[in-house]
Amino acid sequence: MSSAAARTGVWLIGARGSVATTVVAGCAALTAGLHAPTGMVTETPHFAGTGLPALSSLVFGGHDTVDCPLPKRAEALAAGGVLPPGLPAAVTAELAAAEREIRPGGPLPGDTRSAEDLVTAFAADIRAFARRSGVARTVVVNVASTEPLARGRDLPPSSLYAAAALRAGCPYVNFTPSTGLHHPSLTAEAAAHALPYAGRDGKTGQTLLRSVLGPMFAQRALTVRAWSGTNLLGGGDGAALADPAAAAAKNAGKERVLHDTLGTTVEGEVHIDDVPALGDFKTAWDHIAFDGFLGTRVILQTIWQGCDSALAAPLVLDLARLTARAHEAGLTGPLRELGFYFKDPVGDGPSGLSEQYAELLGLADRLRARSADAAAADAGERP
Amino acid sequence: MSSAAARTGVWLIGARGSVATTVVAGCAALTAGLHAPTGMVTETPHFAGTGLPALSSLVFGGHDTVDCPLPKRAEALAAGGVLPPGLPAAVTAELAAAEREIRPGGPLPGDTRSAEDLVTAFAADIRAFARRSGVARTVVVNVASTEPLARGRDLPPSSLYAAAALRAGCPYVNFTPSTGLHHPSLTAEAAAHALPYAGRDGKTGQTLLRSVLGPMFAQRALTVRAWSGTNLLGGGDGAALADPAAAAAKNAGKERVLHDTLGTTVEGEVHIDDVPALGDFKTAWDHIAFDGFLGTRVILQTIWQGCDSALAAPLVLDLARLTARAHEAGLTGPLRELGFYFKDPVGDGPSGLSEQYAELLGLADRLRARSADAAAADAGERP
Amino acid sequence: MSSAAARTGVWLIGARGSVATTVVAGCAALTAGLHAPTGMVTETPHFAGTGLPALSSLVFGGHDTVDCPLPKRAEALAAGGVLPPGLPAAVTAELAAAEREIRPGGPLPGDTRSAEDLVTAFAADIRAFARRSGVARTVVVNVASTEPLARGRDLPPSSLYAAAALRAGCPYVNFTPSTGLHHPSLTAEAAAHALPYAGRDGKTGQTLLRSVLGPMFAQRALTVRAWSGTNLLGGGDGAALADPAAAAAKNAGKERVLHDTLGTTVEGEVHIDDVPALGDFKTAWDHIAFDGFLGTRVILQTIWQGCDSALAAPLVLDLARLTARAHEAGLTGPLRELGFYFKDPVGDGPSGLSEQYAELLGLADRLRARSADAAAADAGERP
Amino acid sequence: MSSAAARTGVWLIGARGSVATTVVAGCAALTAGLHAPTGMVTETPHFAGTGLPALSSLVFGGHDTVDCPLPKRAEALAAGGVLPPGLPAAVTAELAAAEREIRPGGPLPGDTRSAEDLVTAFAADIRAFARRSGVARTVVVNVASTEPLARGRDLPPSSLYAAAALRAGCPYVNFTPSTGLHHPSLTAEAAAHALPYAGRDGKTGQTLLRSVLGPMFAQRALTVRAWSGTNLLGGGDGAALADPAAAAAKNAGKERVLHDTLGTTVEGEVHIDDVPALGDFKTAWDHIAFDGFLGTRVILQTIWQGCDSALAAPLVLDLARLTARAHEAGLTGPLRELGFYFKDPVGDGPSGLSEQYAELLGLADRLRARSADAAAADAGERP
Repeated sequence: MSSAAARTGVWLIGARGSVATTVVAGCAALTAGLHAPTGMVTETPHFAGTGLPALSSLVFGGHDTVDCPLPKRAEALAAGGVLPPGLPAAVTAELAAAEREIRPGGPLPGDTRSAEDLVTAFAADIRAFARRSGVARTVVVNVASTEPLARGRDLPPSSLYAAAALRAGCPYVNFTPSTGLHHPSLTAEAAAHALPYAGRDGKTGQTLLRSVLGPMFAQRALTVRAWSGTNLLGGGDGAALADPAAAAAKNAGKERVLHDTLGTTVEGEVHIDDVPALGDFKTAWDHIAFDGFLGTRVILQTIWQGCDSALAAPLVLDLARLTARAHEAGLTGPLRELGFYFKDPVGDGPSGLSEQYAELLGLADRLRARSADAAAADAGERP
Repeated sequence: MSSAAARTGVWLIGARGSVATTVVAGCAALTAGLHAPTGMVTETPHFAGTGLPALSSLVFGGHDTVDCPLPKRAEALAAGGVLPPGLPAAVTAELAAAEREIRPGGPLPGDTRSAEDLVTAFAADIRAFARRSGVARTVVVNVASTEPLARGRDLPPSSLYAAAALRAGCPYVNFTPSTGLHHPSLTAEAAAHALPYAGRDGKTGQTLLRSVLGPMFAQRALTVRAWSGTNLLGGGDGAALADPAAAAAKNAGKERVLHDTLGTTVEGEVHIDDVPALGDFKTAWDHIAFDGFLGTRVILQTIWQGCDSALAAPLVLDLARLTARAHEAGLTGPLRELGFYFKDPVGDGPSGLSEQYAELLGLADRLRARSADAAAADAGERP
Repeated sequence: MSSAAARTGVWLIGARGSVATTVVAGCAALTAGLHAPTGMVTETPHFAGTGLPALSSLVFGGHDTVDCPLPKRAEALAAGGVLPPGLPAAVTAELAAAEREIRPGGPLPGDTRSAEDLVTAFAADIRAFARRSGVARTVVVNVASTEPLARGRDLPPSSLYAAAALRAGCPYVNFTPSTGLHHPSLTAEAAAHALPYAGRDGKTGQTLLRSVLGPMFAQRALTVRAWSGTNLLGGGDGAALADPAAAAAKNAGKERVLHDTLGTTVEGEVHIDDVPALGDFKTAWDHIAFDGFLGTRVILQTIWQGCDSALAAPLVLDLARLTARAHEAGLTGPLRELGFYFKDPVGDGPSGLSEQYAELLGLADRLRARSADAAAADAGERP
Repeated sequence: MSSAAARTGVWLIGARGSVATTVVAGCAALTAGLHAPTGMVTETPHFAGTGLPALSSLVFGGHDTVDCPLPKRAEALAAGGVLPPGLPAAVTAELAAAEREIRPGGPLPGDTRSAEDLVTAFAADIRAFARRSGVARTVVVNVASTEPLARGRDLPPSSLYAAAALRAGCPYVNFTPSTGLHHPSLTAEAAAHALPYAGRDGKTGQTLLRSVLGPMFAQRALTVRAWSGTNLLGGGDGAALADPAAAAAKNAGKERVLHDTLGTTVEGEVHIDDVPALGDFKTAWDHIAFDGFLGTRVILQTIWQGCDSALAAPLVLDLARLTARAHEAGLTGPLRELGFYFKDPVGDGPSGLSEQYAELLGLADRLRARSADAAAADAGERP
C-alpha cells in the first residue's frame, strides 16, 4: 500500500471563493507548521492510523466562473480578518500553484453549449488535472455559492459538476445546499458508477448549534413551541442568499435538523439578510420558546458570531481526506457516517450531533482496521 | 411483584421550598390529568415497562426549618408565575396532606443537640412517616437551599440528613451542591448500608446547556479560550447564593462540567447575583470565546430565562421514581447512570449529555428486564 | 372653568382589542387606587396644574368588528399575563360599562354601504355616545390592528373612522401606522375642521429604543453601517403584521426614526414574525454594526422583551388626556409636541427622544399657563 | 490671535498604553488624511469656527512606567485588530517623535523619593517638554490604568501627576476613575492656580449606553427594578480592574450615572472580569428589569462589543483640544460643559447624554463667539 506516498487531488467547484481560498491557504499553513489544526476533526487522535491522506499530499484545482486570482483573493480575506495578516504572503507559492489549476466554470450567460457538452468539458478538465498532477484519485468538492432551488427537469450547474465528477470517476462531496447529485436524472448514473459520495450543506454555525440543542430538548422531554432565527451576513454569501430561492434551499436544511432532532415541526421562521457591512463575518440569532413543567415558559436565545469560511474550511479538508480514503478502501454510495458534517445528510443516519460523532468514530475504526489489514497483507507479500 | 400497587414515600429535605412545593403540586396536577408531563423524562415511552412507581403512588413528607405552610407557599408561587394560576386551589388537598407530614428540620440557632441527637431525631421522623403512610420504601431527596462549603470535620446539616437517610434505610438523592453523603465521615457508613444513592446538584439550566455545548466544541476540535457566565436570580436561592461560600459550592459543579467535557480548564468566571426583583425567575448569560480554523475568533453567547423550580421539579420526580425502583431492584451504591441529571455526578460516568442520556436508557433497559423477570417469576409461582 | 368636573369621552377604534382592553381596565384600576400609574407620563409632577382631565373623568366607548366582549377579553389577557390576575374581576363594572358603548365597525366583507354611508354612520355613533355620556368632548383614538398600506384613491377603513371623527367634531389620535387622517382626500377636510390631531404609530418598544440610540451615535460622531432587526410577536398583532403590506406600513415608521436621528439611510432589514406561541408578548432583537475611531468595528445588540399592550396603554391614556386638553385650550391642527409618543410624528418636530421630551414639557408649560389664566379669569368673573 | 499657527502640547499620563498609542497614531493618521475622523465630535460641523487647535498642531509626550516603545506597542495593537493593519508603518515617524518625549513615571517599587520630590520632577518634565516643543500651552491628560481607590491622606500616583500639572501651569483632564485632582489636599491648590480642568472617567461603552437608556426610562415613567451588568475585557485594563479596589473606583462612576438619570438607586451589580483571551476587545452585557403599566414585567438586554482604546482615543483628542481652547479663552475651574464625555463629571451638570450634548454645543457657541471677538480685535489692531 502506498497511500501515504501518493498524492490526492482536491477539485473545488467555486475554487476562487472564500471557502476554497481558505482551504488552500489553510492547508499550506498547516503543512508548513504555521498554525495548529484547530477545527480539523481528522487531526485529532481518534483518526490516527486510519490511513487518511496527509495534508501535505493534497493537490488543489477546480472550476470557477469569476476571475480574481487566488493570491489576490487571499489578500482580500486577510484584510477582512478571515485569514491571519501575514498568511497570504507566507503561502503565496501554494496559492499560485492552485490558481494555475483553476479552469473556467459555467455556464455563464450567453454560453450556448448543451448540458452534455458542459459535463464533457468539465470531466475532461478534471481528468487532465489528475494526469498532470499524478494523483492517485481526485475528490470533487462543491463549495460554490448556493444556487436557487432547481425547478423543472434541467440540470442546474451544481448537477452538471456532479455529473462530471461521476464521469471522471471521482468521489463527490456537496458542501452546499445546491442540488448536486440529488437530481432525479442523476440517480441511476450515481448508482452505476459505484463511487462514494457525501453531502449536503455543511453544518458550520447556527445549524451546528441546533443539532446539539434539539436533542437536549428532546432528551429532557421539554416541549419546544417556537424556534425563530435571523442570520446576518455579508460577503458573496449574503448576496447569494438574499435571493429567496437560494435562501429556501438553505433553510430547508436548517429546518430538517430541527424536525429530525425534535421529532416534530415547530413554529418559527429563519431569515437570511444580506448585510454587506459585515463582510465575511456572520451573526446568527436564535430565539427558542419552550415549555417546562406545568407549561411554564422558558426562553433560550443564542448569538453566534464568526466567519463562515473559517468554520467551513477545516470541514472541507476533513471531508476531502475521509472521502478519498473511503474511495481507496472500496466504500461506495452515500457515506452516511459523514452526517456529522451536514445539515441534510445523505443516507439514513441519526440527526443529533453526538450520535453523528459516534458514527464518524465508527467509520474511523473501520478505516483503521482496513489499514491494518492492508499493512499486514503488504508485509505478507514481501519476500 | 406488587410494586404497582404499593405506595412509595418521597421525603424532601427543604419540604416547604419552591422546588418541593412545585414537586408536590405538580405531581398532584399530573395525577389528576390537569397537565401533560412536560419535562419528565420518566414519562417518555423509553421508560414504559420499567416498573417505576406510578406518580399517583407517591406520598410526600419532609423536613424544613421554615414555617410557611405548603398551600400558602403554593399561592405565592402561583402569584409569581411559577405555578399556573388556578393550580394551588385545584390540588389543595394534596398540598395539605404533604404539609401534615412535614417535621421541623435543624439545627436552628440555639439548638444544643449534638449531631448524633439530630441524626437520631431525623431518622425517627422518616421511619414514623413510612409507618404512618404504609409505603414500601421512602426515598430521601435534598432540595434545600445550598449551604456554604463545609470546612472542618463537623457534619453540615445536609450531611446530618444524609446520615439519617442511611440510618432509616432509605435511598438518598442530593439535588443540591451541598455536601450530603460526600462527607468523609459518612463514607464507611454509606458503604455499609448498601443503599443506592444519586447526586449531586441538579443540572437544570445554564449547566444543562454547557453539557451539550462543551462536547460540541470538543467533537469539532474547536479550541475554547474563555467561558464566562453571569446568573441573575431572586427568590430564596438568590439570597442563599449571594453568600460567596455557597456560590463556591455551586460554581465548582458548573466548572467541573466544562473541564470534563472540554478536557481542559479554560479562562472565565461565573457570577451568581441576588436580584430580588426577578423573583423565582432566573437569567443566565454565557459568553464563550473560541478559536476556529487558523485561530480566527468566534463568539457564542447564550441567554437562558426560566424558572428554576419549574425546571427542577420534574427531574426530582424522575429521580425519586428511578431511585426507588433501583432500590427495589436491588441496586446499591452510587447510581452513575443518573449522571444525566447532575452537574457533579457520583460514580465515573461520561460528562456529555448525550452519553449520559444513553446511560440512562441503559438503566431503563436493565430495570425493564428485571421487571420482566419478576413478572415471569410471579407467573411461575401462581398455581 | 369646569374642566375638572366635566367628563371626557374616549372613543376607541378597535375597542375590543388588547390595547383598548388594557386602557379601559387600567384606567379603572388606577382610578380605584389598585396600581401606581407606572408608564403614564401625564401622572408625573411635570404635568401638575396643566388642567388635564382626571383619569376618573374618562368615559370609554368605540367601534370594533369583533364580538368578544370586553370582560371576557380582559379575562383572556389576565390568563396570558398581560393584566394582573385579579384585575378583570376588580374592574368588571367599568369593563361592562365600556362594552355597552361599543358599536359595530366596518366595513366587514359583504357590506355594501358606500364610504359616505359608513362615515355618516360612524359619526352618528360617536355623537350619540357623546350625548348619552354627557361628555364635554370626545377624543377618537385609533388602536385597531395595522391595516395594509393603502393603494389607490379609496379611503381605507382607518380613514373612514378619521373622517367620522372630523365630522363629529372630535380631536383625533392615530396610535397605529394605518393611514387615518394621512389620506390626500382628507387633507382639506382636516384643515377646515380646525381640530387638534396627533399621530402616527405609537413608539412603545424597539422604536423607542432606536429613538435614543440613534441620537447617541449621531452625537458621538460614530458611523452606523448596518441596523438590522427582528420582531417576534403573537397575538392578533403578529398575525396582522405577517401580511407584508401591513408590515411595510409598520416598518416605514421604524426606518424613519433611524433615518431622521442618524441623518442618513443605513443598511439593514426589519422582520416581523408571527409567532403565536408567544401570545401577547413580544421580543425584538436589534443588531447595530458601527464604526469607531479609524474604522474599528463595534457591535451593539439589544433584546427587548415585553408586552406591547401594556406598553401602549398608558401612552394612549396620556394622549387622550393631552389631546382633549389641547382641544379645550383651543389648539388646532397637528400637535407636533406629541412627537415623543410616535414613530412617525405629525408636524415638523425633532426625532430624538430627549428633544421630543423637551417639546412635550414645553406643551405642558403652555397648558399650565392657560389653566392659570382661565382660573384668574374665573376668579375675576365671580362676584 | 495666532492659535491656528501655534502648537499645542498633549502630555499623556500612561503614554505607552493602548489609549495613548491609539491617540498618537490616530492623530497622525487623520492629519495625513488616511482615515475619516469617525468618533471625533470636535470634527463635526458644530465645532467649526470655535478656534480649536488643529489636529496637525498637536505635539505629544508623557509619562509612563513601562518600557515598550510606542512603535512596538502600535504593532502589537495592529496585530490585535485595534489599529488598522498598515497604520503603524504609515505613522512610524510620528510614533517615534512622541516616544522621544516620554519620561519615566513613578513611583515604582523601591523609589524612595517623597511625594514633593516626585511632583517637582514630573512638573520639570512637563515644562522641559513645553520649552523644547515650543508649544503655546500643554494639556495634561491621564489615560493610565485605573489605580485602586485611594485610602488615607497620601497622594496616590494619579494625584501626584495632577499636582505636577498644576505646578507646571497646565490644564488637566482625568480620563480615568483614578483620584487625580479629586484629592482633598489638592483642592486649595487647584483653586489657586485658576486653570481649567475636566474629568472624570471617560464614558466609552456600557456607561455611554446607560446615559441614554436611563433618561428613556425616566422620561417614560417606567420603573426600573434591577440593572445588572457584566464586563469582560482582557488587555492590561482587564488585569488592572480584576483588583477589587480598582473595580470599585470604576463601578462608582457607572452607578452614579444610573442613580442620577433614574433619580433613584436600583438593585443590581456590575462585574468586571479579566479575560485575557479577549485581548483589547471588550464585551459588556446589561440586563435591565423594569415595570410597565400595571406592573407588567419588561426586560431589556444590551450587548456591547468593541475595543475600548478605539472608543476612548477620539474622545481624548476632543478633550485635549477643547481644554486647550478653554485655557486660551480664559476659562478656569471645572469645565462642567464637558460632562458629555464622563461617567462622573466635575461640576454640576445634567446626567442624561442629550442634555450633556446640548451643554457641549453651548460651550462651542461661547468659544466661537470669543474667536469672533478675538478676530475682530485682531482686525482692529492691524494698521
